[in-house]
Amino acid sequence: MRVESEESRTDLSIFASASVSLEQIRRPIERELDQFDAVFRRALKSKIGLVDIVTRYIIRQKGKRVRPMLVLLSAKACGPVSDRSFRGAGLVELLHTATLVHDDVVDDADTRRGFASINAVWKNKVAVLLGDYLLSRGLLLALEQHDVDFLNLTSIAVKRMSEGELLQIQKTRQLDLTEETYLQIIGDKTASLFATCTEIGAASATDSASLHQALRSYGENLGLAFQIRDDLLDYLGKKSIIGKPTGIDIKEKKLTLPLIHALRNGSRKDARQALRTIKDGAKEKQIEWVMKFVKEEGGIEYASERALTFAALARTNIELLPPSSSKESLLGFIRFVTEREK
Amino acid sequence: MRVESEESRTDLSIFASASVSLEQIRRPIERELDQFDAVFRRALKSKIGLVDIVTRYIIRQKGKRVRPMLVLLSAKACGPVSDRSFRGAGLVELLHTATLVHDDVVDDADTRRGFASINAVWKNKVAVLLGDYLLSRGLLLALEQHDVDFLNLTSIAVKRMSEGELLQIQKTRQLDLTEETYLQIIGDKTASLFATCTEIGAASATDSASLHQALRSYGENLGLAFQIRDDLLDYLGKKSIIGKPTGIDIKEKKLTLPLIHALRNGSRKDARQALRTIKDGAKEKQIEWVMKFVKEEGGIEYASERALTFAALARTNIELLPPSSSKESLLGFIRFVTEREK
Repeated sequence: MRVESEESRTDLSIFASASVSLEQIRRPIERELDQFDAVFRRALKSKIGLVDIVTRYIIRQKGKRVRPMLVLLSAKACGPVSDRSFRGAGLVELLHTATLVHDDVVDDADTRRGFASINAVWKNKVAVLLGDYLLSRGLLLALEQHDVDFLNLTSIAVKRMSEGELLQIQKTRQLDLTEETYLQIIGDKTASLFATCTEIGAASATDSASLHQALRSYGENLGLAFQIRDDLLDYLGKKSIIGKPTGIDIKEKKLTLPLIHALRNGSRKDARQALRTIKDGAKEKQIEWVMKFVKEEGGIEYASERALTFAALARTNIELLPPSSSKESLLGFIRFVTEREK
Repeated sequence: MRVESEESRTDLSIFASASVSLEQIRRPIERELDQFDAVFRRALKSKIGLVDIVTRYIIRQKGKRVRPMLVLLSAKACGPVSDRSFRGAGLVELLHTATLVHDDVVDDADTRRGFASINAVWKNKVAVLLGDYLLSRGLLLALEQHDVDFLNLTSIAVKRMSEGELLQIQKTRQLDLTEETYLQIIGDKTASLFATCTEIGAASATDSASLHQALRSYGENLGLAFQIRDDLLDYLGKKSIIGKPTGIDIKEKKLTLPLIHALRNGSRKDARQALRTIKDGAKEKQIEWVMKFVKEEGGIEYASERALTFAALARTNIELLPPSSSKESLLGFIRFVTEREK
């Protein structure tokens, strides 16, 4: 007996499969994403040749468009997708791209002040300037329609993102981090933009304040689960899967949840040794020892559990949404961030 | 016979002196600048220790506050200084500080990817993040009062400033620059913020659209005169006066107006030799030759004249303002930018 429509079968398939893919999550808004691409391409256009070259490169890479997806799914789950939804999606993607470009600034200073080669000059300067340019494009996109609410949400996100990163740098220097501060950092640097995406999506499709708040909370919790999982992958993944060497956070003296838990759970002696090793700049052998220490002290399980807790909160946040394929995709997103292997 | 009030004597003294100082220009708004300092300090406050350390350093340096001065003088010359004027001044100073911090990103990449020392890591990352943070603080300052007009002006300024810098980088690479493109670059990278300051000032004090436009044009022309003079100082100044070695623009392959004019005015042979010298990376002796070439071909006089032309335009732009000590200071500003020696 076949009672399901084509669409609902698609949704169910998300939950039948062992793990959910972004392709599946994307399905309810495939057409909208195409429209978004056009808006985004238009917003990036510039009369400056150098800007166009770099932005065309960005468009070609395209990325996973996770943030526009969150905007459009949140919108469609709350009401009809509107022009405001596309503008919101463009705004967050411009903002996200700006931060990615700024992240590209090579962390390499102090060494050769003065007259660097012109090739070197371009790299960092262009990254900083292009990031600023993208940010202003995003602002202007919102301002074109006097969308003060979106601008407010976005400015708060920019502030939280930079504060989170700066707090992390400060704490890295001090090698002293509690779980509470860790959660504040990842809330600011990662979850703030997720929450902005989902709230902007909801605000573009409905006037219901309770839905705005529900989607915002969903985004915040999803972001926390996402970042905990992301930090966990550094302890789980293999080089070939995550595309970067395992243990890089240890090398970079970055304390994340698995290690924070192990330091708190392990013996004073082991914890001291781990911190000293990290502080002095750990080499391969020593990194292996720290990883073993984290595993033996239950750091992996603890961080996994915490990610699942925030995932469960996110699920509760959107219980009030009416059933739809977009709601299913928002639920699929939760599974995606907690299950992903890379 | 003494008919002048204390105030008008102060104003006249600006024009009696051989050259006008920022202290003199500042006089009509000294109290307002103190109020501004308090607003600015408040806007920079952060709960993140690292942010507070760096921003306190910025406040201590304080700078010349040229941009807040332009906002407050433009306001006071058009009507009463209001809360909006202070907010506008805070916004542009935050924005300007953000770009200064971003400029601090050391132009030194490519050399040592991978694991730089943590000290090195901080420097660039902190500069980029702190710039983003300051930018978002500026936006939030304007958004607190739903000041969409100011935001619009500011976003356009950010866009023009980054575009101008990027176009300059592109043209530096190509070593090919006409006077027209040079004017576009300095208009975007420098004059755009000056124009934003003076328009925001006017808009905070009067509803007269013709005054908004007049002050905007004044700011744009003042900015052009300022940047031409700034570029000229590289050809005029002595190490000890301008605080940086003469000829640095040549070393950095940056074509500015004196050189552009000389290349156009000189013989084809000399121009080719100058370009080749610059392209290959000029050393002391060769820089001296290029400087001599620029002087002999009248590059210095030409650039000085052009600066004075824009200064005269700026003067005309504000003829319609009623007489006041603030108007006198705006006129003093024109003299200041065209006469300054460092």
